[in-house]
Amino acid sequence: MKNVTKYQRQYYMPPMKCMKWAEKEYVDKAPIWCSVDLRDGNQALVIPMSLEQKIEFFKLLVKIGFKEIEVGFPAASETEYTFVRTLIEQNLIPDDVTIQVLTQAREHIIRKTFEAVKGAPKAIVHVYNSTSVAQREQVFRKSKEEILKIAVDGAKLLKELADETEGNFQFEYSPESFTGTEPEYALEVCNAVLDVWQPTPENKAIINLPVTVELSMPHVYASQIEYMSENMKYRENVILSQHPHNDRGCGVADSELGLLAGADRVEGTLFGNGERTGNVDVVTLAMNMFAQGVDPELDFSDMPHICEVYEACTGMKVDERSPYSGALVFAAFSGSHQDAIAKGMHWRDEKDPNRWTVPYLPIDPTDVGRNYDADVIRINSQSGKGGVGYILETKYGLNMPPKMREAMGYAAKAVSDHSHKELHPDEIFNLFKSTFENVVEPYSINEVHFQQKDGGITTQVTSTFNGKTITTEATGNGRLDAVSNALKKAYEMKFTLVTYQEHALEKSSSSKAIAYVGIQKPDGTLSWGAGVDPDIIRASIDALVTAINNR
Amino acid sequence: MKNVTKYQRQYYMPPMKCMKWAEKEYVDKAPIWCSVDLRDGNQALVIPMSLEQKIEFFKLLVKIGFKEIEVGFPAASETEYTFVRTLIEQNLIPDDVTIQVLTQAREHIIRKTFEAVKGAPKAIVHVYNSTSVAQREQVFRKSKEEILKIAVDGAKLLKELADETEGNFQFEYSPESFTGTEPEYALEVCNAVLDVWQPTPENKAIINLPVTVELSMPHVYASQIEYMSENMKYRENVILSQHPHNDRGCGVADSELGLLAGADRVEGTLFGNGERTGNVDVVTLAMNMFAQGVDPELDFSDMPHICEVYEACTGMKVDERSPYSGALVFAAFSGSHQDAIAKGMHWRDEKDPNRWTVPYLPIDPTDVGRNYDADVIRINSQSGKGGVGYILETKYGLNMPPKMREAMGYAAKAVSDHSHKELHPDEIFNLFKSTFENVVEPYSINEVHFQQKDGGITTQVTSTFNGKTITTEATGNGRLDAVSNALKKAYEMKFTLVTYQEHALEKSSSSKAIAYVGIQKPDGTLSWGAGVDPDIIRASIDALVTAINNR
Repeated sequence: MKNVTKYQRQYYMPPMKCMKWAEKEYVDKAPIWCSVDLRDGNQALVIPMSLEQKIEFFKLLVKIGFKEIEVGFPAASETEYTFVRTLIEQNLIPDDVTIQVLTQAREHIIRKTFEAVKGAPKAIVHVYNSTSVAQREQVFRKSKEEILKIAVDGAKLLKELADETEGNFQFEYSPESFTGTEPEYALEVCNAVLDVWQPTPENKAIINLPVTVELSMPHVYASQIEYMSENMKYRENVILSQHPHNDRGCGVADSELGLLAGADRVEGTLFGNGERTGNVDVVTLAMNMFAQGVDPELDFSDMPHICEVYEACTGMKVDERSPYSGALVFAAFSGSHQDAIAKGMHWRDEKDPNRWTVPYLPIDPTDVGRNYDADVIRINSQSGKGGVGYILETKYGLNMPPKMREAMGYAAKAVSDHSHKELHPDEIFNLFKSTFENVVEPYSINEVHFQQKDGGITTQVTSTFNGKTITTEATGNGRLDAVSNALKKAYEMKFTLVTYQEHALEKSSSSKAIAYVGIQKPDGTLSWGAGVDPDIIRASIDALVTAINNR
Repeated sequence: MKNVTKYQRQYYMPPMKCMKWAEKEYVDKAPIWCSVDLRDGNQALVIPMSLEQKIEFFKLLVKIGFKEIEVGFPAASETEYTFVRTLIEQNLIPDDVTIQVLTQAREHIIRKTFEAVKGAPKAIVHVYNSTSVAQREQVFRKSKEEILKIAVDGAKLLKELADETEGNFQFEYSPESFTGTEPEYALEVCNAVLDVWQPTPENKAIINLPVTVELSMPHVYASQIEYMSENMKYRENVILSQHPHNDRGCGVADSELGLLAGADRVEGTLFGNGERTGNVDVVTLAMNMFAQGVDPELDFSDMPHICEVYEACTGMKVDERSPYSGALVFAAFSGSHQDAIAKGMHWRDEKDPNRWTVPYLPIDPTDVGRNYDADVIRINSQSGKGGVGYILETKYGLNMPPKMREAMGYAAKAVSDHSHKELHPDEIFNLFKSTFENVVEPYSINEVHFQQKDGGITTQVTSTFNGKTITTEATGNGRLDAVSNALKKAYEMKFTLVTYQEHALEKSSSSKAIAYVGIQKPDGTLSWGAGVDPDIIRASIDALVTAINNR
């Protein structure tokens, strides 16, 4: 690709090898979550949220279970200032929730920020300045010492104003653009800020290491986190926080590896909203833990509702393939996947209903408020017997013989392939009925009488074909066999009755039965029919006639 | 979250520590790319592509530079079979492109597949069977030995049919659901398949290790890949391939760490289309390399066109935050980001035009066919002086004094905050004109005459205020100073002229100049005006009057 020579790696490795995190396999407990939806997320919207939308979104976040919520950059816009004041003055902040406000390390902005949070029951004041090589050189045109001084001066002013202002304040510092900063220098700045704050076990400081722009592979970020975690002063009184963005599509991996590397806290957003490619998606992070049996301490059990409020407030759309939340993420169109899912569901019912191991479904869709019928097994030209059989069984109570399932699968595939569309469950059911149920053309039966005689059955069958009605007598070892023999005799047909199966139609309101009949023609091919009737004998005869009509 | 006890980890660690990959920092060369858009991607669409759409998509993939393209599962649907035949019979496959077809390891499906690829100049026949614990137990209800035999029988039949069939064939085997398989067992199966195929340097075999469902963190997958790579028989004649899905949102990380761990090849799709959460997004993978100065050997320089064809063929939408391709991924709404980008662009022009290090933009948007004006600096209530100043400068040629930029930033923010909408460049320009350019209410100037006298300037100014016109005389050390003094005298106004700046309006068709004037009132606040006129003196006077009118 042309212009590739314009680029080079812009991150910096720690001065020592930091790979202890790679010995760990998975995240075994929930971090402290901080939502930045109302800040970083809001800032990235074409139309930022109104005051009412922010309040609605805040309530949603509380309901999900966030205990720390960044509510804005109150010195930056009227709406954000008013929102913070509204939360405080209208007592909208629950006792166990701490709001967080963002401010640059500049005097007038810090002062305005404290005006905004005055009287908050609990608030985190989050101060930042940019420390990367690119920003020092291009934006601030300042030396390392001068940039460090901005951070320290900000930290001092926070301490001073916190003492003067009504409310309870915790401090957070971010060396913004951390991923473009030399780790040793980032550490020096963070330690200098901590020297000002002197954190204690009762009032820990938060040091947040943002992936402002994703510049490296995720294991490099993890090694930077491990370096910071292992070398930070007052470490036991510091909450080490991450704030990953997603420019390289690895925000989730950054966060997870970072947690292994020592981070205690994650700042992110629902569905990965946020500047450019977004912040890390907290839904995916939390549900990844859940899918491995670790309680994320956030509640996404009503995902459809969460998606709805999110979309209404932000004007964004949850992507159809967004993990755990997208419209298509539980959908299986492919025949082999559908078959495996159907078998996996049966296996689970039989063997281990308390454990989820169904193939192709990382979690049970019902655990996030989705359902099997509408979301999982979906039928198009890629689908086969497994999916069609599953839908007819679970939604309409039809338990066809396996070989008939195959015939029905081909029938559905042909319709979908030619009409070039998805088939909805009702269409599949209608296709089943028109193809396989009580088909009375060209052959139909008008009347049947039975008599038990000499351990066998004799029948008298009146049938119609081509407008001509005839009556035939025959015997058989059972009623269906007798009727079958009568029809063979009447029309000189050759076939063998190979499958017969029936069951009550539980899902139907009346007490009907359904019978399935498969016959084999002399060339070895099979054809199928089903009959539905309150009388099981009549149902089986209708099934047989349908199979004959389907030859 | 309730029901969490239903879940446990479902992957298996390699029997030895495999973490050598973690010593490497980044991917330093392009892998072999294989597009599976027409297979895995197509299979996951609510409405699969038509024959015409598939041909159009195939041509797009060729144009981007894919040399291996999986074109279908021809034994599974009429449309896919016809598509493969069409490609071969209409000679649509370029000489340097190899098509790939997928088949289960089942005899009748393999035979049908070879019918489909008969006569292909070069084709990869990709055979798979599922090897995971869950599938062996729940779906196939078979032992390890029986599952291995399915793979070996399939491999044998491939070899046999390749000898009999016209065309040139390469073989690929996937232990499907690899991520749910014990690595030792997956290795055993792959080695047994390779024993059948006996790959050579001239005809290497492809072993593909799919993340059929993402079950672990990405570093676990990488360690599985390293284990397979280090212990596989015939390794030098094997192309080790990956096929990651994205259930945990880590498909990109899996692929990248897997490449460090020894994989040679990646199967993926454009924009991560594919079953459920999708396959790995090849666009992100390739562009991640590009952004670090490594040529990905795929060409995404016309991303808008690629998005357009993709959306038309698949009916899917490229997500607004999809890395490198989404509508919003270069957008900066935030004031501080806009300011840094504007400064970074200036710095680059001055210092290092051949290197891209602009803050907040991982790549130059123009390298993927996007542009600064429409895509980068976008103005809403989150924006400030930097963005507004940048747009007025780059799009309209206005180079305002820094402090005036701030005033214009506040004006734009207020409009956007209250109207609750994004402001487009033309709206910003109109806001500038209505607020700061040639404002003639309440004060206006009708006539001005100058005379040079005693090293100073004397002026006679005729001005109107409240319908009343007066003429005043005054002196000054320059023309503007003199007019300023005349107005102060006429209306008993108090202010100091603190800033004056002017430049030619290059972007305008006529040869006009623009002057900017800032005045300070006794209370210390500033107000601003601009004047546009072919005559620079008149422009400066109009600017002054506007600043006065804006007090």
